[in-house]
Amino acid sequence: MRVVDLIRRKRDGHELSRDEISALVSGYTKGDIPDYQIASLLMAIVLRQMTRAELAALTEAMLHSGEVLDFSDLPAKKVDKHSTGGVGDKISLILAPIVASEGVFVPMISGRGLGHTGGTLDKLESIPGFNVNLSLPEFRRVLKESYCGLIGQTAEIAPADKKLYALRDVTGTVESPYLICASIMSKKLAEGIDALVLDVKTGSGAFMKKKEDAIFLAELMVETGKRMGKKMVALITDMDQPLGRMVGNAMEIAECVDVLNGGGAPDLRELSLQLSAWMFYLGERAKSVAEGYKLAEQAIASGKAKEKFREIIRLQGGDAKVMDDPKRLPQAKHTVEFTASQAGFVQSMDCERIGTACVVLGGGREKKEDAVDPAVGLVLHKKVGDEVAAGEPLCSVHYNSDQRLEEALGMLRAGYHIAPVAPETPRTLIHQVIGT
Amino acid sequence: MRVVDLIRRKRDGHELSRDEISALVSGYTKGDIPDYQIASLLMAIVLRQMTRAELAALTEAMLHSGEVLDFSDLPAKKVDKHSTGGVGDKISLILAPIVASEGVFVPMISGRGLGHTGGTLDKLESIPGFNVNLSLPEFRRVLKESYCGLIGQTAEIAPADKKLYALRDVTGTVESPYLICASIMSKKLAEGIDALVLDVKTGSGAFMKKKEDAIFLAELMVETGKRMGKKMVALITDMDQPLGRMVGNAMEIAECVDVLNGGGAPDLRELSLQLSAWMFYLGERAKSVAEGYKLAEQAIASGKAKEKFREIIRLQGGDAKVMDDPKRLPQAKHTVEFTASQAGFVQSMDCERIGTACVVLGGGREKKEDAVDPAVGLVLHKKVGDEVAAGEPLCSVHYNSDQRLEEALGMLRAGYHIAPVAPETPRTLIHQVIGT
Repeated sequence: MRVVDLIRRKRDGHELSRDEISALVSGYTKGDIPDYQIASLLMAIVLRQMTRAELAALTEAMLHSGEVLDFSDLPAKKVDKHSTGGVGDKISLILAPIVASEGVFVPMISGRGLGHTGGTLDKLESIPGFNVNLSLPEFRRVLKESYCGLIGQTAEIAPADKKLYALRDVTGTVESPYLICASIMSKKLAEGIDALVLDVKTGSGAFMKKKEDAIFLAELMVETGKRMGKKMVALITDMDQPLGRMVGNAMEIAECVDVLNGGGAPDLRELSLQLSAWMFYLGERAKSVAEGYKLAEQAIASGKAKEKFREIIRLQGGDAKVMDDPKRLPQAKHTVEFTASQAGFVQSMDCERIGTACVVLGGGREKKEDAVDPAVGLVLHKKVGDEVAAGEPLCSVHYNSDQRLEEALGMLRAGYHIAPVAPETPRTLIHQVIGT
Repeated sequence: MRVVDLIRRKRDGHELSRDEISALVSGYTKGDIPDYQIASLLMAIVLRQMTRAELAALTEAMLHSGEVLDFSDLPAKKVDKHSTGGVGDKISLILAPIVASEGVFVPMISGRGLGHTGGTLDKLESIPGFNVNLSLPEFRRVLKESYCGLIGQTAEIAPADKKLYALRDVTGTVESPYLICASIMSKKLAEGIDALVLDVKTGSGAFMKKKEDAIFLAELMVETGKRMGKKMVALITDMDQPLGRMVGNAMEIAECVDVLNGGGAPDLRELSLQLSAWMFYLGERAKSVAEGYKLAEQAIASGKAKEKFREIIRLQGGDAKVMDDPKRLPQAKHTVEFTASQAGFVQSMDCERIGTACVVLGGGREKKEDAVDPAVGLVLHKKVGDEVAAGEPLCSVHYNSDQRLEEALGMLRAGYHIAPVAPETPRTLIHQVIGT
């Protein structure tokens, strides 16, 4: 097998075999196949797409390029949730304690903020002392003890994905549903889970702006997971505006605590309960999604979920007192109100711009090397459909340096669309459920 | 300008500007842009194609990556011919002396054998002492003196092409008419020529097996050359069987001498005269192609072309006595006849297999590093349409080692198709003329 012949076959629209794909992935991971050959192959894949069999083979090869965790000795199902990323999406940190508190294991390997979106790891690290860099044995220990572990990707997990992702980033080959699917699924399947709930975002703040693209990606991921014997479901959910009211790392932790205390914004609370319900159902802790939903509500009402989050923070070295005193989280020095220039209704939001406003304040990264400011962010007082008077605050901007404040305010100006009449169609939180 | 954004634009089917293409080519040549980004871009070009403006920009950028020769001080037009490669195609070495002998300059930078095809440089080097590695000042000196120079690509000429070609070879991005056009034209336009005659081969022994592909490539090259102010023509010619009767480096030199002596196979002689005629016409030495044809015939009949070849060999350090005594060329130790297993007519030939038989004997390279055996080759006694008796020789095989003789004979067996009746359609040597 010559690598160049495989590239040519893929280029010409032919299917590569499982063995060929496996040889390519392991050869690349070992360094036997150079970057330039894989770059060419990736572009051929972007433009020629993949068959389902090729996608399964790619995902499997990437999965087996590193360690695949085995938690089969633990005495209940292991279930995770993955979101394709959005603005204000802090749901992992609400749902993990809910689900773990009712005896389903949640071994969660998360990522950092990407582009205009936030990342679970960055949010967790805003809790003083919280350590997301556990070794795999430590991960197993906290998982066994608390039913939940929250870490970042380690060198042992899917090293092929790490190498491929870095190459895709600089060769214009990120935007392929097949490559996105293989990247996500190879990491998630390495977690030793029995089931996976996918939250595939669509709308102005999602990577998949078009609903049909989100559905296509969701179907690929569900099918790929099922081929590997996992229980799978994907919810296509709205990202035409931020989730909840907070955007920014520490501020989102505080909002998670609100929800676990029984409060929080309705959309955030509802989607957290829905996704938890599916995790209970697929994790065989509930006989139906409806039963799972009730269980999730109870976990909040009883305070069990909140106590679980406290335990998780403590076990991973964090300051659990933030649960009672959110002021212990990093606080920005300054606040300014961003107000409406005219009266009317919030007609729509450009959610990517809202997310980017937070990045510009320092809450996200523009380059990989950038440090994140955990304190900065936005409190959204008005969301889509809300009425607003001229001069009334649309959101509060929490910032530390006014260097790029103007730029952030400009993003917000472009991000809020005010019109004289209320928007016609009501918001839909969950567009579709795929995989059942 | 970020390279990755240009790759993404090309990937999505958008047009790159002249400045963007120029920056990509010069950045790559200088080593500022890594192989993996260009590999991805090349695959995007293969699958998304290029506009004519992009192709012109690419060709120009590659041309200007190195030295562009200037022979404008020489007192006549400079014309070259380029063939896309075939089996038994020794026409350059017949036509260059014909055209130079009548006062048109032929500054010819040629290549080596590629795959199953032969290369002009390998053929020339079978002449004892012949030096194809002249420096550019030496090239100018012999061109000025004899009106002809025959060399290989130097480091100064189109270095971008050298680097890109090596990358294309290992990334499955050779087979793009756009990239082939830019590669050929950037080198040819660096020769300081006024006009170029293209011999674009089609058929079982050509790289473009399908006539429509050959026509498409020819049109691209003609248009690109004309955009740069050159006179251009392309002849689409037959490569469904080898040209002439000899396949093999030294043996083809002897066959060239035959044609220059007024003999030689009809197809070889005819195509040499036709291509010479076009060179005379585009080089403004003849008022019409017909007049050019007569001039070429006269150059042979008068012996001027033969004397010119003698002069060229002498000026480039070769043993000019081979012109009178072909036995001074390398001779293979052994000869075996390959005979027909049944009576009938040669219905067709798989010309790529015939060429590969010669490569297998050592007459070509399987890897770049391989040395070429100048002596080995084939004498074709029968070609398409010829009648043959059972047991009658189809061709003679000249070889030095019987190590891979069986393999070569197997290629010949698969290469000759004998049938009871003569083929219906007569052979066409020149399918089409493009660019007038």
